Amino acid sequence: MTDFFDVVARQRACRVFRADPIDDDTIGRLLTAATFAPSAENKQPWEFVVVRDEPTRAALGELSQRAWNETGRAFSENRLTPGMLAEVDHGATVGVAGAPVNIVVCADQERGLAATIPSSIFPAIQNLLLAATALGLGSALTTITTGYRAEMQEILGLPEHVRPIALVPVGHPAKPLGPPRRAPFAEHTHRDRYDRRW
Amino acid sequence: MTDFFDVVARQRACRVFRADPIDDDTIGRLLTAATFAPSAENKQPWEFVVVRDEPTRAALGELSQRAWNETGRAFSENRLTPGMLAEVDHGATVGVAGAPVNIVVCADQERGLAATIPSSIFPAIQNLLLAATALGLGSALTTITTGYRAEMQEILGLPEHVRPIALVPVGHPAKPLGPPRRAPFAEHTHRDRYDRRW
Repeated sequence: MTDFFDVVARQRACRVFRADPIDDDTIGRLLTAATFAPSAENKQPWEFVVVRDEPTRAALGELSQRAWNETGRAFSENRLTPGMLAEVDHGATVGVAGAPVNIVVCADQERGLAATIPSSIFPAIQNLLLAATALGLGSALTTITTGYRAEMQEILGLPEHVRPIALVPVGHPAKPLGPPRRAPFAEHTHRDRYDRRW
Repeated sequence: MTDFFDVVARQRACRVFRADPIDDDTIGRLLTAATFAPSAENKQPWEFVVVRDEPTRAALGELSQRAWNETGRAFSENRLTPGMLAEVDHGATVGVAGAPVNIVVCADQERGLAATIPSSIFPAIQNLLLAATALGLGSALTTITTGYRAEMQEILGLPEHVRPIALVPVGHPAKPLGPPRRAPFAEHTHRDRYDRRW
């Protein structure tokens, strides 16, 4: 038994993993949790590609590194603290390939209307991340590779109508994760109208 | 103590609510859970407008009904079973205004990059829906009103840079919710490459 609010409060992006494998039963628990998320018209438009094969993980890791070098790093450089930048830097270059499992969460655009894809896929991804936390696993929500659609299609053999939405590395954290840093909800909450602060 | 996996398995869209009010402490627990979700660069770009005022809820209810009549119903008519259509029909016209609280989840586009808004807001919304389930409350993820941006700005006094992403009615369910209906994860899961079924 794992307390719901405790899991929520502990969830934190993990970017460095131990190499220990994750078995099929565990993957099944994570993905079953994902499928219980809501989706528009209950269309459940998700497709999961569970990558444990080493050359495929290496290809995803290389793409992740390339995407980070080409777009992410320059963009984030002046926005993140040096500590966070170094963490993400390391995650992009080492984390994805280093995790024993990469779960690529995709949307089947024949099953879900394009406009409803984000509201139908990200809740399932969040369930997956929370379930990993509940099982003592580390994970992270990354989207930087999904802009490289041709490369993702090639690496994973995705058909044209299946669009990658996120890449979630999963594994045992290499070191304990600290608590997440968040602003108190009241700082971003309003009563009835935007001009009335909570 | 509420078991994490039990909460995940019980989450279900609720569209008819009792009128009993929801107090500030409960709202605080829901929104604190929301803020623990991940966001790109940890920018936490969410803004929550908690609507309990009756005329404002009525205005959101009317907009929801109008949006459903103008766009949603025609689109869904041939796609949903008659039972589901009737449920959503009723939800759109009665549920939003009937719920004692409407939480409008918005994105501050000055705090979050446009491309990362969906991956930074829907996980928080999912945490909110799960937290409601954990506390025995009903909720639903609705996005149909968010296309009516001028109307939402007017009703809630939203500034130009704050974009509504979802409207989540919250309250005690009027009747017990059945278990969610989902396809087993393995039907939509692949091993290493898309052409290798799990």
